[in-house]
Amino acid sequence: MTGGPPQPDRATSPRRPRGDAARAKLFDAALKAFANHGFHGTGTREIAAEAGMSGAAMYVHHRSKEELLFAIAMDGHQQALSAIEAGAALHESPAERLASAVWHYTVWHARAHTNALVVQHELGALSAVHAREVFELRRTTEARLRQIVADGVTSGDFEVLDLTMTSLALLSLGIDVARWYRESGVWTPEEIGDHYSQLALRMVGHHPRGRPARR
Amino acid sequence: MTGGPPQPDRATSPRRPRGDAARAKLFDAALKAFANHGFHGTGTREIAAEAGMSGAAMYVHHRSKEELLFAIAMDGHQQALSAIEAGAALHESPAERLASAVWHYTVWHARAHTNALVVQHELGALSAVHAREVFELRRTTEARLRQIVADGVTSGDFEVLDLTMTSLALLSLGIDVARWYRESGVWTPEEIGDHYSQLALRMVGHHPRGRPARR
Repeated sequence: MTGGPPQPDRATSPRRPRGDAARAKLFDAALKAFANHGFHGTGTREIAAEAGMSGAAMYVHHRSKEELLFAIAMDGHQQALSAIEAGAALHESPAERLASAVWHYTVWHARAHTNALVVQHELGALSAVHAREVFELRRTTEARLRQIVADGVTSGDFEVLDLTMTSLALLSLGIDVARWYRESGVWTPEEIGDHYSQLALRMVGHHPRGRPARR
Repeated sequence: MTGGPPQPDRATSPRRPRGDAARAKLFDAALKAFANHGFHGTGTREIAAEAGMSGAAMYVHHRSKEELLFAIAMDGHQQALSAIEAGAALHESPAERLASAVWHYTVWHARAHTNALVVQHELGALSAVHAREVFELRRTTEARLRQIVADGVTSGDFEVLDLTMTSLALLSLGIDVARWYRESGVWTPEEIGDHYSQLALRMVGHHPRGRPARR
Protein backbone atom coordinates (compact mmCIF):
# COMPACT_ATOMS: atom_id res chain seq x y z
CA MET A 1 0.00 0.00 0.00
CA THR A 2 2.72 2.44 0.92
CA GLY A 3 5.34 0.93 -1.33
CA GLY A 4 8.97 1.82 -1.36
CA PRO A 5 9.16 5.48 -2.24
CA PRO A 6 11.92 6.33 -4.69
CA GLN A 7 14.96 8.19 -3.38
CA PRO A 8 13.99 8.00 0.28
CA ASP A 9 17.46 9.17 1.23
CA ARG A 10 16.91 12.54 -0.33
CA ALA A 11 14.10 13.37 2.04
CA THR A 12 14.82 11.44 5.20
CA SER A 13 18.53 11.28 5.85
CA PRO A 14 19.78 13.54 8.62
CA ARG A 15 21.37 16.07 6.30
CA ARG A 16 24.36 18.18 7.12
CA PRO A 17 23.51 21.85 7.37
CA ARG A 18 24.58 23.83 4.36
CA GLY A 19 27.94 25.49 4.67
CA ASP A 20 31.47 24.54 5.34
CA ALA A 21 32.91 21.59 7.16
CA ALA A 22 33.65 23.66 10.27
CA ARG A 23 29.98 24.47 10.69
CA ALA A 24 29.04 20.80 10.30
CA LYS A 25 31.62 19.89 12.92
CA LEU A 26 30.18 22.48 15.28
CA PHE A 27 26.68 21.07 14.79
CA ASP A 28 27.86 17.55 15.54
CA ALA A 29 29.86 18.66 18.58
CA ALA A 30 26.99 20.71 19.98
CA LEU A 31 24.46 17.91 19.40
CA LYS A 32 26.69 15.42 21.17
CA ALA A 33 27.28 17.76 24.11
CA PHE A 34 23.62 18.79 24.42
CA ALA A 35 22.53 15.13 24.22
CA ASN A 36 24.98 14.10 26.95
CA HIS A 37 24.87 17.04 29.34
CA GLY A 38 21.86 19.10 28.33
CA PHE A 39 22.01 22.65 26.98
CA HIS A 40 22.46 24.22 30.41
CA GLY A 41 25.11 21.69 31.38
CA THR A 42 27.24 22.39 28.31
CA GLY A 43 29.82 25.14 27.98
CA THR A 44 30.73 26.89 24.72
CA ARG A 45 34.40 26.00 25.26
CA GLU A 46 33.39 22.36 25.53
CA ILE A 47 31.64 22.51 22.15
CA ALA A 48 34.54 24.29 20.50
CA ALA A 49 37.01 21.76 21.92
CA GLU A 50 34.88 18.83 20.74
CA ALA A 51 34.75 20.40 17.27
CA GLY A 52 38.53 20.85 17.38
CA MET A 53 38.48 24.63 17.16
CA SER A 54 39.14 27.61 19.39
CA GLY A 55 36.41 29.62 21.06
CA ALA A 56 37.27 32.50 18.73
CA ALA A 57 36.87 30.31 15.65
CA MET A 58 33.51 29.11 16.93
CA TYR A 59 32.44 32.71 17.46
CA VAL A 60 32.80 33.31 13.71
CA HIS A 61 29.95 30.86 13.09
CA HIS A 62 27.67 31.44 16.07
CA ARG A 63 27.71 34.33 18.48
CA SER A 64 26.42 32.23 21.37
CA LYS A 65 25.50 28.75 22.50
CA GLU A 66 21.85 29.75 22.17
CA GLU A 67 22.37 30.74 18.56
CA LEU A 68 23.93 27.38 17.84
CA LEU A 69 20.95 25.62 19.41
CA PHE A 70 18.64 27.81 17.34
CA ALA A 71 20.44 26.88 14.13
CA ILE A 72 20.19 23.18 15.05
CA ALA A 73 16.50 23.50 15.93
CA MET A 74 15.61 25.33 12.71
CA ASP A 75 17.58 22.81 10.66
CA GLY A 76 15.86 19.85 12.36
CA HIS A 77 12.37 21.30 12.03
CA GLN A 78 13.03 22.20 8.39
CA GLN A 79 14.11 18.64 7.66
CA ALA A 80 11.02 17.19 9.35
CA LEU A 81 8.79 19.52 7.35
CA SER A 82 10.63 18.61 4.14
CA ALA A 83 10.11 14.92 4.89
CA ILE A 84 6.34 15.44 4.92
CA GLU A 85 6.32 17.62 1.81
CA ALA A 86 8.68 15.40 -0.17
CA GLY A 87 6.78 12.27 0.89
CA ALA A 88 3.41 13.65 -0.12
CA ALA A 89 4.75 15.01 -3.40
CA LEU A 90 5.61 11.51 -4.59
CA HIS A 91 1.97 10.48 -4.96
CA GLU A 92 -1.47 11.55 -6.15
CA SER A 93 -4.15 9.78 -4.10
CA PRO A 94 -4.91 10.99 -0.56
CA ALA A 95 -4.12 7.57 0.95
CA GLU A 96 -0.77 7.27 -0.82
CA ARG A 97 0.12 10.87 -0.05
CA LEU A 98 -0.64 10.41 3.66
CA ALA A 99 1.11 7.03 3.88
CA SER A 100 4.19 8.41 2.16
CA ALA A 101 4.29 11.62 4.24
CA VAL A 102 4.01 9.62 7.47
CA TRP A 103 6.62 7.15 6.21
CA HIS A 104 9.18 9.85 5.48
CA TYR A 105 8.42 11.78 8.66
CA THR A 106 8.74 8.64 10.79
CA VAL A 107 11.90 7.42 9.09
CA TRP A 108 13.48 10.85 9.52
CA HIS A 109 12.77 10.80 13.26
CA ALA A 110 14.33 7.35 13.58
CA ARG A 111 17.45 8.20 11.56
CA ALA A 112 17.95 11.62 13.11
CA HIS A 113 16.78 10.62 16.57
CA THR A 114 19.59 12.35 18.48
CA ASN A 115 19.01 15.59 16.63
CA ALA A 116 15.22 15.36 17.10
CA LEU A 117 15.51 14.58 20.81
CA VAL A 118 17.90 17.42 21.57
CA VAL A 119 15.67 19.86 19.73
CA GLN A 120 12.59 18.62 21.62
CA HIS A 121 14.25 18.68 25.02
CA GLU A 122 16.03 22.01 24.78
CA LEU A 123 13.43 24.23 23.11
CA GLY A 124 12.90 25.98 26.44
CA ALA A 125 16.47 27.28 26.26
CA LEU A 126 15.78 29.34 23.14
CA SER A 127 15.22 33.08 23.32
CA ALA A 128 11.60 34.19 22.92
CA VAL A 129 12.26 35.48 19.40
CA HIS A 130 13.98 32.27 18.30
CA ALA A 131 11.35 30.06 19.96
CA ARG A 132 8.67 31.92 17.98
CA GLU A 133 10.46 31.13 14.72
CA VAL A 134 10.72 27.45 15.60
CA PHE A 135 7.07 27.27 16.61
CA GLU A 136 6.12 29.00 13.37
CA LEU A 137 7.88 26.22 11.45
CA ARG A 138 6.17 23.66 13.66
CA ARG A 139 2.77 25.18 12.93
CA THR A 140 3.57 25.03 9.21
CA THR A 141 4.41 21.34 9.58
CA GLU A 142 1.15 20.67 11.40
CA ALA A 143 -0.74 22.59 8.72
CA ARG A 144 0.89 20.62 5.89
CA LEU A 145 -0.04 17.25 7.37
CA ARG A 146 -3.52 18.49 8.32
CA GLN A 147 -4.06 19.58 4.71
CA ILE A 148 -3.14 16.11 3.44
CA VAL A 149 -5.69 14.60 5.82
CA ALA A 150 -8.28 17.27 4.96
CA ASP A 151 -7.90 16.51 1.25
CA GLY A 152 -8.70 12.88 1.97
CA VAL A 153 -11.79 13.85 3.96
CA THR A 154 -12.98 16.10 1.14
CA SER A 155 -12.48 13.37 -1.45
CA GLY A 156 -14.35 10.87 0.73
CA ASP A 157 -11.33 8.62 1.21
CA PHE A 158 -10.95 9.43 4.90
CA GLU A 159 -13.40 9.74 7.76
CA VAL A 160 -11.81 11.43 10.77
CA LEU A 161 -13.09 11.95 14.28
CA ASP A 162 -11.43 15.37 14.59
CA LEU A 163 -9.24 16.74 11.82
CA THR A 164 -6.84 18.73 14.01
CA MET A 165 -6.49 16.21 16.82
CA THR A 166 -6.03 13.29 14.45
CA SER A 167 -3.34 15.18 12.52
CA LEU A 168 -1.55 16.03 15.75
CA ALA A 169 -1.71 12.36 16.80
CA LEU A 170 -0.18 11.32 13.47
CA LEU A 171 2.74 13.66 14.09
CA SER A 172 3.06 12.38 17.68
CA LEU A 173 3.66 8.87 16.42
CA GLY A 174 6.65 9.98 14.37
CA ILE A 175 8.00 12.38 16.98
CA ASP A 176 7.95 9.79 19.73
CA VAL A 177 9.99 7.39 17.62
CA ALA A 178 12.97 9.66 18.34
CA ARG A 179 12.49 8.90 22.04
CA TRP A 180 12.45 5.11 21.89
CA TYR A 181 14.35 4.27 18.68
CA ARG A 182 17.73 2.61 19.09
CA GLU A 183 20.12 1.66 16.30
CA SER A 184 20.55 -1.67 18.09
CA GLY A 185 16.78 -2.31 18.15
CA VAL A 186 14.91 -5.00 16.23
CA TRP A 187 13.25 -2.70 13.69
CA THR A 188 14.85 -0.63 10.97
CA PRO A 189 13.63 2.94 10.43
CA GLU A 190 11.99 1.74 7.22
CA GLU A 191 10.09 -1.08 8.99
CA ILE A 192 8.77 1.40 11.53
CA GLY A 193 7.84 3.73 8.67
CA ASP A 194 5.95 0.92 6.89
CA HIS A 195 3.99 0.04 10.01
CA TYR A 196 3.23 3.62 10.99
CA SER A 197 2.00 4.57 7.53
CA GLN A 198 -0.49 1.71 7.75
CA LEU A 199 -1.51 2.77 11.25
CA ALA A 200 -1.99 6.29 9.88
CA LEU A 201 -4.48 5.03 7.29
CA ARG A 202 -6.43 3.30 10.04
CA MET A 203 -6.40 6.44 12.19
CA VAL A 204 -7.92 8.55 9.42
CA GLY A 205 -10.57 5.92 8.72
CA HIS A 206 -9.33 5.21 5.23
CA HIS A 207 -11.76 3.36 3.00
CA PRO A 208 -10.79 3.07 -0.66
CA ARG A 209 -13.34 4.56 -3.01
CA GLY A 210 -15.30 2.16 -5.19
CA ARG A 211 -14.58 -0.81 -2.94
CA PRO A 212 -16.71 -2.38 -0.24
CA ALA A 213 -16.19 -0.91 3.23
CA ARG A 214 -13.15 -2.55 4.76
CA ARG A 215 -13.36 -4.72 7.80
CA MET B 1 -18.00 3.73 23.18
CA THR B 2 -15.44 4.78 25.70
CA GLY B 3 -17.87 6.36 28.11
CA GLY B 4 -16.98 8.33 31.16
CA PRO B 5 -15.11 5.96 33.43
CA PRO B 6 -16.15 6.25 37.07
CA GLN B 7 -13.72 7.85 39.50
CA PRO B 8 -11.22 8.99 36.90
CA ASP B 9 -9.46 11.14 39.48
CA ARG B 10 -8.35 8.16 41.45
CA ALA B 11 -6.27 6.83 38.61
CA THR B 12 -5.19 9.87 36.63
CA SER B 13 -4.51 12.82 38.90
CA PRO B 14 -0.85 13.65 39.40
CA ARG B 15 -0.65 12.26 42.90
CA ARG B 16 1.65 13.50 45.58
CA PRO B 17 4.28 10.99 46.56
CA ARG B 18 3.52 9.21 49.76
CA GLY B 19 5.18 10.69 52.81
CA ASP B 20 5.29 13.97 54.57
CA ALA B 21 4.72 17.47 53.34
CA ALA B 22 8.44 18.20 53.22
CA ARG B 23 9.00 15.44 50.72
CA ALA B 24 6.12 16.68 48.57
CA LYS B 25 7.60 20.19 48.67
CA LEU B 26 10.97 18.80 47.57
CA PHE B 27 9.34 16.97 44.66
CA ASP B 28 7.58 20.13 43.52
CA ALA B 29 10.70 22.26 43.90
CA ALA B 30 12.87 19.77 42.03
CA LEU B 31 10.33 19.35 39.22
CA LYS B 32 10.10 23.10 38.78
CA ALA B 33 13.88 23.52 38.76
CA PHE B 34 14.50 20.58 36.41
CA ALA B 35 11.76 21.82 34.06
CA ASN B 36 13.23 25.33 33.96
CA HIS B 37 16.96 24.68 33.96
CA GLY B 38 17.41 20.99 33.26
CA PHE B 39 18.86 18.47 35.68
CA HIS B 40 22.46 19.46 34.97
CA GLY B 41 21.65 23.15 35.22
CA THR B 42 20.09 22.80 38.67
CA GLY B 43 21.96 22.86 41.98
CA THR B 44 20.86 21.02 45.12
CA ARG B 45 20.94 24.27 47.08
CA GLU B 46 18.55 25.79 44.55
CA ILE B 47 16.08 22.94 45.09
CA ALA B 48 16.34 23.15 48.86
CA ALA B 49 15.83 26.93 48.77
CA GLU B 50 12.79 26.61 46.49
CA ALA B 51 11.35 24.03 48.90
CA GLY B 52 12.03 26.41 51.79
CA MET B 53 14.47 24.13 53.61
CA SER B 54 18.17 23.91 54.30
CA GLY B 55 20.54 21.68 52.38
CA ALA B 56 20.90 19.57 55.53
CA ALA B 57 17.13 19.12 55.80
CA MET B 58 16.97 18.08 52.16
CA TYR B 59 19.74 15.55 52.76
CA VAL B 60 17.45 13.75 55.25
CA HIS B 61 15.10 12.88 52.39
CA HIS B 62 17.47 12.36 49.46
CA ARG B 63 21.20 11.88 49.55
CA SER B 64 21.74 13.51 46.18
CA LYS B 65 20.09 15.36 43.32
CA GLU B 66 20.24 12.14 41.30
CA GLU B 67 18.36 10.28 44.01
CA LEU B 68 15.66 12.92 43.98
CA LEU B 69 15.34 12.58 40.20
CA PHE B 70 15.16 8.81 40.59
CA ALA B 71 12.33 9.11 43.15
CA ILE B 72 10.45 11.44 40.80
CA ALA B 73 11.01 9.13 37.82
CA MET B 74 9.85 6.02 39.68
CA ASP B 75 6.80 7.84 41.00
CA GLY B 76 5.87 9.13 37.53
CA HIS B 77 6.33 5.75 35.84
CA GLN B 78 4.35 4.03 38.59
CA GLN B 79 1.48 6.46 38.13
CA ALA B 80 1.47 5.95 34.35
CA LEU B 81 1.41 2.17 34.85
CA SER B 82 -1.38 2.48 37.41
CA ALA B 83 -3.41 4.57 34.96
CA ILE B 84 -3.35 1.70 32.46
CA GLU B 85 -4.10 -0.97 35.05
CA ALA B 86 -6.87 0.99 36.77
CA GLY B 87 -8.39 1.96 33.42
CA ALA B 88 -8.46 -1.61 32.12
CA ALA B 89 -9.81 -2.96 35.42
CA LEU B 90 -12.99 -0.92 35.05
CA HIS B 91 -14.26 -2.99 32.13
CA GLU B 92 -14.70 -6.51 30.74
CA SER B 93 -14.63 -6.42 26.95
CA PRO B 94 -11.31 -5.98 25.12
CA ALA B 95 -12.51 -2.82 23.36
CA GLU B 96 -13.71 -1.17 26.55
CA ARG B 97 -10.60 -2.25 28.44
CA LEU B 98 -8.30 -0.80 25.77
CA ALA B 99 -10.31 2.41 25.37
CA SER B 100 -10.35 2.95 29.12
CA ALA B 101 -6.65 2.14 29.58
CA VAL B 102 -5.69 4.56 26.78
CA TRP B 103 -8.09 7.18 28.19
CA HIS B 104 -6.54 7.06 31.66
CA TYR B 105 -2.99 6.91 30.34
CA THR B 106 -3.55 9.88 28.04
CA VAL B 107 -5.37 11.97 30.64
CA TRP B 108 -2.58 11.31 33.14
CA HIS B 109 0.04 12.55 30.68
CA ALA B 110 -1.94 15.73 30.06
CA ARG B 111 -2.58 16.46 33.73
CA ALA B 112 0.92 15.56 34.88
CA HIS B 113 2.66 16.90 31.78
CA THR B 114 5.45 18.73 33.63
CA ASN B 115 6.28 15.64 35.64
CA ALA B 116 6.15 13.41 32.56
CA LEU B 117 8.33 15.74 30.48
CA VAL B 118 11.01 16.12 33.12
CA VAL B 119 11.17 12.37 33.58
CA GLN B 120 11.45 11.82 29.81
CA HIS B 121 14.09 14.49 29.27
CA GLU B 122 16.34 13.71 32.21
CA LEU B 123 16.44 9.91 32.20
CA GLY B 124 20.00 10.08 30.92
CA ALA B 125 21.06 11.70 34.18
CA LEU B 126 20.16 8.63 36.25
CA SER B 127 22.80 6.20 37.46
CA ALA B 128 22.98 2.92 35.56
CA VAL B 129 21.34 1.04 38.44
CA HIS B 130 18.51 3.53 38.77
CA ALA B 131 17.98 3.73 35.02
CA ARG B 132 17.60 -0.06 34.95
CA GLU B 133 14.83 0.11 37.57
CA VAL B 134 12.98 2.78 35.61
CA PHE B 135 13.29 0.83 32.38
CA GLU B 136 12.03 -2.27 34.13
CA LEU B 137 8.89 -0.37 35.13
CA ARG B 138 8.59 0.91 31.59
CA ARG B 139 8.81 -2.62 30.20
CA THR B 140 6.09 -3.68 32.62
CA THR B 141 3.91 -0.83 31.35
CA GLU B 142 4.49 -1.87 27.75
CA ALA B 143 3.70 -5.48 28.65
CA ARG B 144 0.42 -4.52 30.39
CA LEU B 145 -0.86 -2.59 27.41
CA ARG B 146 0.37 -5.22 24.98
CA GLN B 147 -1.56 -7.86 26.93
CA ILE B 148 -4.77 -5.85 26.67
CA VAL B 149 -4.29 -5.66 22.91
CA ALA B 150 -3.31 -9.34 22.70
CA ASP B 151 -6.49 -10.35 24.56
CA GLY B 152 -8.53 -8.51 21.94
CA VAL B 153 -6.67 -10.26 19.13
CA THR B 154 -7.28 -13.64 20.76
CA SER B 155 -10.97 -12.93 21.20
CA GLY B 156 -11.26 -11.81 17.59
CA ASP B 157 -12.21 -8.23 18.49
CA PHE B 158 -8.95 -6.76 17.21
CA GLU B 159 -6.88 -7.28 14.11
CA VAL B 160 -3.41 -5.78 14.45
CA LEU B 161 -0.60 -5.35 11.95
CA ASP B 162 2.09 -6.04 14.55
CA LEU B 163 1.22 -6.55 18.20
CA THR B 164 4.37 -5.04 19.72
CA MET B 165 4.71 -2.09 17.39
CA THR B 166 1.03 -1.19 17.59
CA SER B 167 1.15 -1.32 21.39
CA LEU B 168 4.21 0.91 21.40
CA ALA B 169 2.46 3.35 19.08
CA LEU B 170 -0.54 3.47 21.43
CA LEU B 171 1.76 4.44 24.29
CA SER B 172 3.51 7.02 22.10
CA LEU B 173 0.25 8.86 21.57
CA GLY B 174 -0.23 9.32 25.30
CA ILE B 175 3.42 10.07 26.03
CA ASP B 176 3.64 12.77 23.38
CA VAL B 177 0.63 14.57 24.86
CA ALA B 178 2.96 15.65 27.68
CA ARG B 179 5.07 17.45 25.08
CA TRP B 180 2.35 19.50 23.40
CA TYR B 181 -0.38 19.81 26.03
CA ARG B 182 -0.93 23.27 27.50
CA GLU B 183 -3.40 24.15 30.25
CA SER B 184 -4.34 27.16 28.11
CA GLY B 185 -5.05 24.98 25.05
CA VAL B 186 -8.43 24.35 23.46
CA TRP B 187 -8.83 20.73 24.62
CA THR B 188 -9.27 19.41 28.14
CA PRO B 189 -7.31 16.30 29.15
CA GLU B 190 -10.61 14.39 29.07
CA GLU B 191 -11.40 15.50 25.50
CA ILE B 192 -7.97 14.36 24.37
CA GLY B 193 -8.54 11.07 26.24
CA ASP B 194 -11.90 10.57 24.51
CA HIS B 195 -10.41 11.14 21.08
CA TYR B 196 -7.32 9.04 21.66
CA SER B 197 -9.27 6.08 22.99
CA GLN B 198 -11.29 6.09 19.77
CA LEU B 199 -8.11 6.40 17.70
CA ALA B 200 -6.74 3.44 19.68
CA LEU B 201 -9.68 1.26 18.63
CA ARG B 202 -9.04 2.16 15.01
CA MET B 203 -5.35 1.39 15.36
CA VAL B 204 -6.02 -2.13 16.67
CA GLY B 205 -8.57 -2.76 13.89
CA HIS B 206 -11.46 -3.09 16.29
CA HIS B 207 -14.56 -4.71 14.84
CA PRO B 208 -17.33 -5.53 17.31
CA ARG B 209 -18.26 -9.19 17.39
CA GLY B 210 -21.68 -10.12 16.07
CA ARG B 211 -22.07 -6.89 14.13
CA PRO B 212 -21.46 -6.14 10.48
CA ALA B 213 -17.93 -5.03 9.66
CA ARG B 214 -17.66 -1.34 10.41
CA ARG B 215 -17.00 1.19 7.73
